[in-house]
Amino acid sequence: MADKTIPYKIYLSEDELPKNYYNMRADMKVKPAPLLNPGTHEPMTAEELEPVFCEELVQQELNDDDRLIPIPEEIQDFYKMYRPAPLVRAYCLEEKLQTPAKIYYKYEGNNTSGSHKLNSAIAQAYYAKKQGLKGVTTETGAGQWGTALSMACSYFDLDCQVYMVKVSYEQKIFRREVMRTYGASVTPSPSDTTNVGRQILAEHPGTTGSLGCAISEAVEAATSQEGYRYVLGSVLSQVLLHQSIIGLETKTAMDKYGITPDVIIGCCGGGSNLGGLIAPFMGEKLRGEKDYQFIAVEPASCPSLTRGQYVYDFCDTGRVCPLAKMYTLGSGFIPSSNHAGGLRYHGASTVISELYDQGYMDAVSYEQTEVFQAAEYFARCEGILPAPESSHAIKGAIEEALKCKETGEEKTILFGLTGTGYFDLTAYQQFNDGTMTDYIPTDEEIAAGLAGVPQFPGNEVK
Amino acid sequence: MADKTIPYKIYLSEDELPKNYYNMRADMKVKPAPLLNPGTHEPMTAEELEPVFCEELVQQELNDDDRLIPIPEEIQDFYKMYRPAPLVRAYCLEEKLQTPAKIYYKYEGNNTSGSHKLNSAIAQAYYAKKQGLKGVTTETGAGQWGTALSMACSYFDLDCQVYMVKVSYEQKIFRREVMRTYGASVTPSPSDTTNVGRQILAEHPGTTGSLGCAISEAVEAATSQEGYRYVLGSVLSQVLLHQSIIGLETKTAMDKYGITPDVIIGCCGGGSNLGGLIAPFMGEKLRGEKDYQFIAVEPASCPSLTRGQYVYDFCDTGRVCPLAKMYTLGSGFIPSSNHAGGLRYHGASTVISELYDQGYMDAVSYEQTEVFQAAEYFARCEGILPAPESSHAIKGAIEEALKCKETGEEKTILFGLTGTGYFDLTAYQQFNDGTMTDYIPTDEEIAAGLAGVPQFPGNEVK
Repeated sequence: MADKTIPYKIYLSEDELPKNYYNMRADMKVKPAPLLNPGTHEPMTAEELEPVFCEELVQQELNDDDRLIPIPEEIQDFYKMYRPAPLVRAYCLEEKLQTPAKIYYKYEGNNTSGSHKLNSAIAQAYYAKKQGLKGVTTETGAGQWGTALSMACSYFDLDCQVYMVKVSYEQKIFRREVMRTYGASVTPSPSDTTNVGRQILAEHPGTTGSLGCAISEAVEAATSQEGYRYVLGSVLSQVLLHQSIIGLETKTAMDKYGITPDVIIGCCGGGSNLGGLIAPFMGEKLRGEKDYQFIAVEPASCPSLTRGQYVYDFCDTGRVCPLAKMYTLGSGFIPSSNHAGGLRYHGASTVISELYDQGYMDAVSYEQTEVFQAAEYFARCEGILPAPESSHAIKGAIEEALKCKETGEEKTILFGLTGTGYFDLTAYQQFNDGTMTDYIPTDEEIAAGLAGVPQFPGNEVK
Repeated sequence: MADKTIPYKIYLSEDELPKNYYNMRADMKVKPAPLLNPGTHEPMTAEELEPVFCEELVQQELNDDDRLIPIPEEIQDFYKMYRPAPLVRAYCLEEKLQTPAKIYYKYEGNNTSGSHKLNSAIAQAYYAKKQGLKGVTTETGAGQWGTALSMACSYFDLDCQVYMVKVSYEQKIFRREVMRTYGASVTPSPSDTTNVGRQILAEHPGTTGSLGCAISEAVEAATSQEGYRYVLGSVLSQVLLHQSIIGLETKTAMDKYGITPDVIIGCCGGGSNLGGLIAPFMGEKLRGEKDYQFIAVEPASCPSLTRGQYVYDFCDTGRVCPLAKMYTLGSGFIPSSNHAGGLRYHGASTVISELYDQGYMDAVSYEQTEVFQAAEYFARCEGILPAPESSHAIKGAIEEALKCKETGEEKTILFGLTGTGYFDLTAYQQFNDGTMTDYIPTDEEIAAGLAGVPQFPGNEVK
């Protein structure tokens, strides 16, 4: 049994909280490829981005140079309401696994949105307010991002218009009601409030919607209303920047107790949580100061990094956003319908993709039943009921700890526990009932998705 | 605006966590009236209680003398997994109210059960394990207590049998699935697994169950299986004892920063949270060392303290438990069906009742719509979506803060925020839709409930 000289939970004091975000692009010798204008295939300029995104966020999106970007005091004040997030030593998990490994996790679920999404939502709401906007628009699928954004907008007294995929609007009523309680207007998508929505409704009268359609409606709503902009909860570089607060707090806490992780593990969909967790550690690795092993864990049903290709692709299924160079399965790739958790995104952020391509990180994939087994195992000893997304990281950490058990190595493993599973209990019910199934896409299905990647010189799919 | 020298959140370090529970009965000159055998009207002995409850818990139930009762190390270790709970300075609420009052709340929602219930669940599970039992049985209505108990039992590898009111079993499937994920067996009550259940099913074939019936089934299940005992999540003195961890942590945190509360506010159903929050403060008041104002907040639809009578009554609607002297509306009193939150209990714990009767605390009641208004107001500035139960305390605190605004007094207000509203979103939906209604029972309805109080010499209802 571990000697427990390290506390179960390390909480930083308020004066130890980060004052700057960490922009790991500043440490990258080869920068992530720029966003391209889908018409001209030229890099997107600030002028082209500003009708859609807030000015200061556009600057952050394009900033490859400044390692530290100050966190405005107003955002720091909001962070103090739900941060620091605890860095937890998983003593019970270690004991149950009988592993010599030391396992730590950074837990981001202790806020009403239930996940790390709030870290970027509050920053984006702040910059919108600072620019004097009336409000913001966004899309949401399962509702995690929409919830976070509605909390942030309520705090800064901004209007928040959420386009929620119709099937989720009707089924995930709890998520919808949280957003409404925070004063957001939630519209089932497709709706008759936008041209694109009306067009889709006319063509497909019975449709239950899709994330691609909701993005298209949210972008139209932002650009057609005076004083509104569109905001996004993952994938973009600015989002990874805001999420660096996760890694910065973690590193400060670990440094304080003289802990150095050997392996750092995060689940990866768009990459916002993973990019945030690894940021300051990756900075050290990029500068050649220290070495860490980084592992991205993705679902076998949506394996962007492990089976995708590194090419320019549309960021959204609706194809209204700029092109981004990323590991992608094709913007038309839809994970099989039995897939219960999140991490359904067809690509990975440009930063994560470039780091992976340069060999700075590894990636593995797991099937959902084994991920839920890990989730149940974790919940029963560590107490916390994890979100399905976060459970991919748990599965990755357990596998690493079991390797240590075989080899006898006393590695220090750090993983990101991004959120709670309170709103994912339909998936847990499937697991409890034994009716959960797995699906790995065939090579033909992967090829069919990739066939939708835009073809232009230098962007060929192999 | 406040100068913010006090942190937004005060977290104690692990070595500052309480090592003893606080038994405020030791400080009471007039002790709470003993539990009575419903047949003989004689005080219940340990021997009579032990077939139903764990031995060590019976000792705690009967202990009027020891002020400090050591917390076993195994329980302390579990507490370290989700405690300390933060003591939060409500800077944003203060600013929004423009009050000179300083408002603090102790937040118990940062654990998967979502409430303070886990504090007692883990203690009760520990003592059951220590006694060598195979498992425990209990009832649950909305599922908060059942969730907490299933987490605790999973940690100590104890069997956990939960009888869940059938209508909740069918409607609150998320709660049910959390319990199942932690390995509990959840049975809709009434069921055909007990004599009392079969009897009720034969008499009322279509019934959707009641808490009283679920208690009766859980008690029968405990006493008819070798190695099982029954456990309860509120009302009992032992539960208030375990919940004293709330008040002890709060007091340590306040002492550390030189803060003295003037008013201490808690919501009150059975009284477990309120009794736990006030324990060490009430101890000082009972010993004449300090003065504090204590306010119990209850729903106007179930006003045990403010409109009930202080007499011996059954603890459960099924009338299988001992008689307890408490402020009661009669064990047959059922709050109107429009009542959305918890706090539906017909009486208040013997300790709370005796303190209230002796004038050591005040009580107020509020209607549910104004309570949800307070909840929304709080959520939008402080971030946390509160449970309907906890929102009664928020309402009470806001009222006190507004009084300070009028008088200019800079009072320090402390309230207990017992849990999150994640599983109460059907009620929030009613509120958001404007379909929530209020109901205050008539004098005739109160009298009808009290008519069910057992009549024996010295126990007359006025």
